[in-house]
Amino acid sequence: MEECIFCKIAKSKISENIIYQNSNFFSIPNINPKVKGHALVISRKHFETVLDLPNLIGSDLLDCIKNTTLKLFKEDVKGFNVANNNFEIAGQVVHHVHFHILPRREDDNFNLGI
Amino acid sequence: MEECIFCKIAKSKISENIIYQNSNFFSIPNINPKVKGHALVISRKHFETVLDLPNLIGSDLLDCIKNTTLKLFKEDVKGFNVANNNFEIAGQVVHHVHFHILPRREDDNFNLGI
Repeated sequence: MEECIFCKIAKSKISENIIYQNSNFFSIPNINPKVKGHALVISRKHFETVLDLPNLIGSDLLDCIKNTTLKLFKEDVKGFNVANNNFEIAGQVVHHVHFHILPRREDDNFNLGI
Repeated sequence: MEECIFCKIAKSKISENIIYQNSNFFSIPNINPKVKGHALVISRKHFETVLDLPNLIGSDLLDCIKNTTLKLFKEDVKGFNVANNNFEIAGQVVHHVHFHILPRREDDNFNLGI
């Protein structure tokens, strides 16, 4: 069985693309960005969806989301969205839980729809 | 100055609409649902955005997101999105941090765009 792509990245020694990391999460740029600076916060261990994340690692999740966002804040970034898809019907492509961080700029033509 | 609407709800004794709650977060149905069952996870204390949330309450945040979602899982729900808007440019309307929980069904005509 082919290994999960996010598990591969988590185990790799190549960390040049890492935006931020702590004991339970790391973040990298999304290779298919929907907006400039689009990043992914990914759990080090394999969990399929948010429902599988132990509550105890919630503090590291918040830490990684906040610090990743802060590193993406450039002068023209005026806000950001955090978004997460669980199961295929919701748009989950890689079955390893991850959170999209989307820095927002004027006229970026992006809309989460909520 | 008018009090924040989510602070008012957090302090109110009316809990009949509460879906789930713990020490730091509670969830209620969104009054303008984008999909059936659309709910909001809201911090009890006033924080403007995710950047203001103390890491320590991340475990309660995960707990509230997970348990709210589980209560929204009906037979035809096949997945869910979690989404959060920070600052006006990102679509934040109420300036009190909250997370949208969007249960997903076949043919619900909803798309987060990511």
